Amino acid sequence: MSAPKKVVLAYSGGLDTSIILKWLQTEYGCEVVTFTADLGQGEELEPARKKAELLGIKPENIYIEDVREEFVRDFVFPMFRANAVYEGLYLLGTSIARPLISKRLVEIAEEVGADAIAHGATGKGNDQVRFELSAAALNPDVKCIAPWREWDLSSRTRLLEFAEANQIPIAKDKRGEAPFSVDANLLHTSSEGKVLENPAEQAPEYVYQRTVAPEDAPNEAEFVEITFEKGDAVAINGAAMSPATILTKLNELGGKHGIGRLDFVENRFVGMKSRGIYETPGGTVLLEAHRGIEQITLDSGAGHLKDSIMPRYAELIYNGFWFSPEREMLQALIDKSQELVSGTVRLKLYKGAATCVGRWSETSLYSEAHVTFEEDAGAYDQKDAAGFIQLNALRLRLLAARKRRLAE
Amino acid sequence: MSAPKKVVLAYSGGLDTSIILKWLQTEYGCEVVTFTADLGQGEELEPARKKAELLGIKPENIYIEDVREEFVRDFVFPMFRANAVYEGLYLLGTSIARPLISKRLVEIAEEVGADAIAHGATGKGNDQVRFELSAAALNPDVKCIAPWREWDLSSRTRLLEFAEANQIPIAKDKRGEAPFSVDANLLHTSSEGKVLENPAEQAPEYVYQRTVAPEDAPNEAEFVEITFEKGDAVAINGAAMSPATILTKLNELGGKHGIGRLDFVENRFVGMKSRGIYETPGGTVLLEAHRGIEQITLDSGAGHLKDSIMPRYAELIYNGFWFSPEREMLQALIDKSQELVSGTVRLKLYKGAATCVGRWSETSLYSEAHVTFEEDAGAYDQKDAAGFIQLNALRLRLLAARKRRLAE
Amino acid sequence: MSAPKKVVLAYSGGLDTSIILKWLQTEYGCEVVTFTADLGQGEELEPARKKAELLGIKPENIYIEDVREEFVRDFVFPMFRANAVYEGLYLLGTSIARPLISKRLVEIAEEVGADAIAHGATGKGNDQVRFELSAAALNPDVKCIAPWREWDLSSRTRLLEFAEANQIPIAKDKRGEAPFSVDANLLHTSSEGKVLENPAEQAPEYVYQRTVAPEDAPNEAEFVEITFEKGDAVAINGAAMSPATILTKLNELGGKHGIGRLDFVENRFVGMKSRGIYETPGGTVLLEAHRGIEQITLDSGAGHLKDSIMPRYAELIYNGFWFSPEREMLQALIDKSQELVSGTVRLKLYKGAATCVGRWSETSLYSEAHVTFEEDAGAYDQKDAAGFIQLNALRLRLLAARKRRLAE
Amino acid sequence: MSAPKKVVLAYSGGLDTSIILKWLQTEYGCEVVTFTADLGQGEELEPARKKAELLGIKPENIYIEDVREEFVRDFVFPMFRANAVYEGLYLLGTSIARPLISKRLVEIAEEVGADAIAHGATGKGNDQVRFELSAAALNPDVKCIAPWREWDLSSRTRLLEFAEANQIPIAKDKRGEAPFSVDANLLHTSSEGKVLENPAEQAPEYVYQRTVAPEDAPNEAEFVEITFEKGDAVAINGAAMSPATILTKLNELGGKHGIGRLDFVENRFVGMKSRGIYETPGGTVLLEAHRGIEQITLDSGAGHLKDSIMPRYAELIYNGFWFSPEREMLQALIDKSQELVSGTVRLKLYKGAATCVGRWSETSLYSEAHVTFEEDAGAYDQKDAAGFIQLNALRLRLLAARKRRLAE
Repeated sequence: MSAPKKVVLAYSGGLDTSIILKWLQTEYGCEVVTFTADLGQGEELEPARKKAELLGIKPENIYIEDVREEFVRDFVFPMFRANAVYEGLYLLGTSIARPLISKRLVEIAEEVGADAIAHGATGKGNDQVRFELSAAALNPDVKCIAPWREWDLSSRTRLLEFAEANQIPIAKDKRGEAPFSVDANLLHTSSEGKVLENPAEQAPEYVYQRTVAPEDAPNEAEFVEITFEKGDAVAINGAAMSPATILTKLNELGGKHGIGRLDFVENRFVGMKSRGIYETPGGTVLLEAHRGIEQITLDSGAGHLKDSIMPRYAELIYNGFWFSPEREMLQALIDKSQELVSGTVRLKLYKGAATCVGRWSETSLYSEAHVTFEEDAGAYDQKDAAGFIQLNALRLRLLAARKRRLAE
Repeated sequence: MSAPKKVVLAYSGGLDTSIILKWLQTEYGCEVVTFTADLGQGEELEPARKKAELLGIKPENIYIEDVREEFVRDFVFPMFRANAVYEGLYLLGTSIARPLISKRLVEIAEEVGADAIAHGATGKGNDQVRFELSAAALNPDVKCIAPWREWDLSSRTRLLEFAEANQIPIAKDKRGEAPFSVDANLLHTSSEGKVLENPAEQAPEYVYQRTVAPEDAPNEAEFVEITFEKGDAVAINGAAMSPATILTKLNELGGKHGIGRLDFVENRFVGMKSRGIYETPGGTVLLEAHRGIEQITLDSGAGHLKDSIMPRYAELIYNGFWFSPEREMLQALIDKSQELVSGTVRLKLYKGAATCVGRWSETSLYSEAHVTFEEDAGAYDQKDAAGFIQLNALRLRLLAARKRRLAE
Repeated sequence: MSAPKKVVLAYSGGLDTSIILKWLQTEYGCEVVTFTADLGQGEELEPARKKAELLGIKPENIYIEDVREEFVRDFVFPMFRANAVYEGLYLLGTSIARPLISKRLVEIAEEVGADAIAHGATGKGNDQVRFELSAAALNPDVKCIAPWREWDLSSRTRLLEFAEANQIPIAKDKRGEAPFSVDANLLHTSSEGKVLENPAEQAPEYVYQRTVAPEDAPNEAEFVEITFEKGDAVAINGAAMSPATILTKLNELGGKHGIGRLDFVENRFVGMKSRGIYETPGGTVLLEAHRGIEQITLDSGAGHLKDSIMPRYAELIYNGFWFSPEREMLQALIDKSQELVSGTVRLKLYKGAATCVGRWSETSLYSEAHVTFEEDAGAYDQKDAAGFIQLNALRLRLLAARKRRLAE
Repeated sequence: MSAPKKVVLAYSGGLDTSIILKWLQTEYGCEVVTFTADLGQGEELEPARKKAELLGIKPENIYIEDVREEFVRDFVFPMFRANAVYEGLYLLGTSIARPLISKRLVEIAEEVGADAIAHGATGKGNDQVRFELSAAALNPDVKCIAPWREWDLSSRTRLLEFAEANQIPIAKDKRGEAPFSVDANLLHTSSEGKVLENPAEQAPEYVYQRTVAPEDAPNEAEFVEITFEKGDAVAINGAAMSPATILTKLNELGGKHGIGRLDFVENRFVGMKSRGIYETPGGTVLLEAHRGIEQITLDSGAGHLKDSIMPRYAELIYNGFWFSPEREMLQALIDKSQELVSGTVRLKLYKGAATCVGRWSETSLYSEAHVTFEEDAGAYDQKDAAGFIQLNALRLRLLAARKRRLAE
């Protein structure tokens, strides 16, 4: 690969990506364009601009964008239509943000005529894969630079030396090593590494940043009603809101009630197990609500098919294949199922749990006329069940008869 | 079908199955054999014996058995190896008990030379299917009698008239109609019908029989350690116990902390939606624990395969196909995966939730050496990730190149 | 069910459906509307009109339609996009025709104000299920009458007596029983029953009606080129044709070369095994061609996903669930994959086999630059494979290390 | 990776692996152990011994083994129990041989105290992956050397120069480049590259080495009977034979009749498409026979489950994951299904096609009593079908009713 001339860097404004910025300049002598996105991580973006300027980035090369609505509308919500969970429990909060960042990196690279993009993910994790597969799927020619896989700044000491040698300001609290590593966006906060590396030991309470401990949550339950249209949440307690506003509001509610904590050991795509602490307050509430509305509006054939492909869909997102034909095919299947998934769900939030306690819909398939224990006025003829069972049993009877015959 | 001469009836001792007992005698003039099982439903069995005798059943025709160990060992535990949940949430507490009851009904029928079995499930539900498919799979010639599909006792009034006309004692509290219908065994209690038929309305607190409300659970968390061998729980807090004892103990713990409540609208096999309230305290704890131990002992290839077939496995159990070749094939696959799923999980029980907070095992696949954020002494070469990504990206690049080519 | 007043009957003009017509009139005293479709079964339709008139059907109650284009365009082609085969081998020729017939029966019933539809399928087969599930999915209130399940005309003798008693003309060759039963449409001819009921015995040559024996096929191969657009065949040897014309032409070619014969024992949805002889000459050629064009235009992720859901898709069609949400969801997934499945395939037809010998496309993903054994000018860096393998191997190494550790 | 001291090389005796042998000696200065296996590729092995000796390999370091029985018994037959085909058509002939070679390489390395194994697969293909994943799964510490990924002998000229410089004898016909590349074993012969690289052009007849052209096959069909026990072929025309003998015999039969040719474009695991010509004469016959015996002995539930997991199973083998937990789990599922897959199939072999024309078995599930068009003596009650359909239709009716309600 020939040396890149112009590189678009996913830049947070923090120490690590500042070092990368400088390293790109010195190692490749290339022009650096920074992209800083507000994905709802809860940090001010303007300091990133200042810091980029300080590091010599030209103003026209500094891209700072609020992509929260796009994030929730085009990534989070489509994923939640599938009730996607990875390995039974993880709501994919980090995985789903990466494709969007890559998409903007590639688009900016095309705008500014850059020949490469760069990111700050390490060579051990999933994020490098997600960034780079997304980029490859969007532009076959773009190069990806992953300094953590290339440089020799392999210890904290070396990094700090490099920073000092290059006049990169180091915040006081960054001198020492953080006790764990954090990623955050509007959907979740993940924490991993260091003090969390022993999966036998309970995570210390100070790791949690976005949810109160259930013990500290209100002693009284709170109820909330979420309204869906075509599988997407569109209103809370009757008030219509934009996608990002809904998720923000659910985060507040969930966080306040200690909802959405997960202590998890997962299988990374790169082949190793890792332990993470995830906080997905709003997402956890949303998943419970979506399941609730599907219970009355989704047919069993549709629902069981969705359930059966969900693990594969979740794996694709986890592994970084958002922009793959098979993810898009599964999305077409999922979206087809959601056309009448509309209605309202009532949830109870209390001490760490969100539970559906009621759901109603104009598109409900629930038929009290059929299911009732009372007289059903002929809606259902119980005698039909005899034939239904008889034919379902036929092959089992033939199997049993064979077994007998062979045993004789 | 010619009239049966001798029938084995699944008999609870309650009013409904007593009416069935009498109806079988009068309708078919047949000899009735009763089978009453202790599945952990929490009722005394001896009253059932007395009542059967009172209704004219010969002592040698009264079968009363404690099948709790068999239930947990041969049905519940194998199912939990799969992390089976139906439609995302339901732990299959009723479904898994039916095959065992059918198995004993068929075995007793063969012992006593009966030509039919009978059960008290209605023509609207899943249980009739489960009973009868199981029976067909075990004995191709056995007949199944489902009085609810046959008789004309279609209202409560008619039933009580029949009972009175046949000297069947009616407990005072059975005069009026129960406000909902209940099924219970060691794994769960389910409630449905009547006051629960409107899925928009929150279930009244008095429906819950086995778990305290989270609000009434202890204000302090309790921690418990569950040890697994080959996928099955074998000890609690270090004390080895039999399968049924373990589940009983977990039920106590879970119930005390308000764990395992589910308000659910599900799709019945017979084609309609129904709403149930499930309480599965011990099972909910067990599922969380099993997932926890799998997190460190199960390889990702094995785990993802298990996840992908789980919905089908759960559907088979729900629909009554426990004794089918496909369930047995899936069980073989699942059991193969559990050979090294051994170790201990630490759980926190608090206000309605069981959460895994630690897990350790001699068969752990978690490698701190590989995953560490610290220097890894060469366990993992980050440069390998570049090639890994490059080849995973190749087809995506070829797709992207095609798109470009066509757009030109 | 109250007696129907007006019934739309799927009417072939043959003896059996004529008997049904008369039986409906006499049994229910209802008005009968006949629907006779040209699905490419190769029979004249006008005799059906004459016969219906003779049996007293009013001219305005006689519907005769050529639905061949709709059949191929909206049913056969969508199914072939999936490469659907049931139980590994059967191309679903009968299954795919039933939903269309039901659709027209229901539509006509709505037009003429009929309250029921009727068909001539027996109670043992799959077709009754396909007709009636389709009807239920299209109109929740329509009744389905299946005389074979209701009447007492259970032997050939009784049927002929009924025909004679009701002045139904009986063709001479229908006096004796046919040695097997036949269903035909543009996609296939199926034969079953009677002389075919022993699956150990080779089917007699006279059973085959649409294909020459491979032994009698031309001694020289014939080559044909089929062009696809978005997964559908649109031209043969460069000549654009309508869907039904294409299938007709492929039937001629395939039949001439003895292609598409299948001797098959299948599992019916109603629980028993049956043996059929299928002839699908054009469909067999089309499947081979479609696979050929997918080989170069479909990405592996897309193709493997399609392959994995195909058995379920085929089972849904076989079982009669064409008009179900899950079939439509799968269709959305499949159709999404076909957007760029365009190009041309060259096939060799010879003595019973159609084999793809070449394929080319403007949307090809085949990259000679990458795959070549020659110098590839840097298109592919073989060193990348080392990292790719290393990370794919990591979990296997961790498993192997565990095995060693435990063995020590 | 430190330089290996002793390497076990998969050695064919041909020019390429002889160059590798010498390169290992010169590049690493290591001791080389050769392993040459008779997998049924149809070549003498003793010349390989002589050549190895000539290249300075010590006699005790030369391993030559006939592994044909193990190959068929432990690899080919288990795979055929699954009816495994990759991407709809490919019988996995190369894929299934690699794990066995790796297994012996690793075992020999452990016996002789070697620290690495080496193979002659290139960096573009699947075989490198299969060799190395297998090795990693069997011994976590063994190193794999793939000279084609490492050396600079990137052109034919360079290779021949190296050979000459190192006194490696070059057969005359190896001076020029072969027009395509070949791999062979008892299951198949594959050809790819060079003259085959354009998928639009028909493969020249001289590429085929193991099957006559259908045009040159006998003008009369030949019939053969294959007997199975538990899913494996055990006899041909009534004569019991060992696994490898059976496959050898079927190869003769298939090859003589031009059966088992495949012109195929496939998706490699490493991300590109490639075109291959496969000849699998015996395997193609065996697959057709196995499907035939399953048709009467396998229950539909079991068969459909097998069909649904088959693509994944085939993909695992293709990608090199034979020794993975998920392949073993799937094998457990498959093997469970085969317990009663026993009986005999009669096949017709003619001009390129093997077709099942009859099958019979003591464990047959086919019930003429149920399926017959004749009077069935009450084996099946057609009225049961009404209830069966009614309940299968219920959810479809509820969907249709909703659609109406919403349209009003």
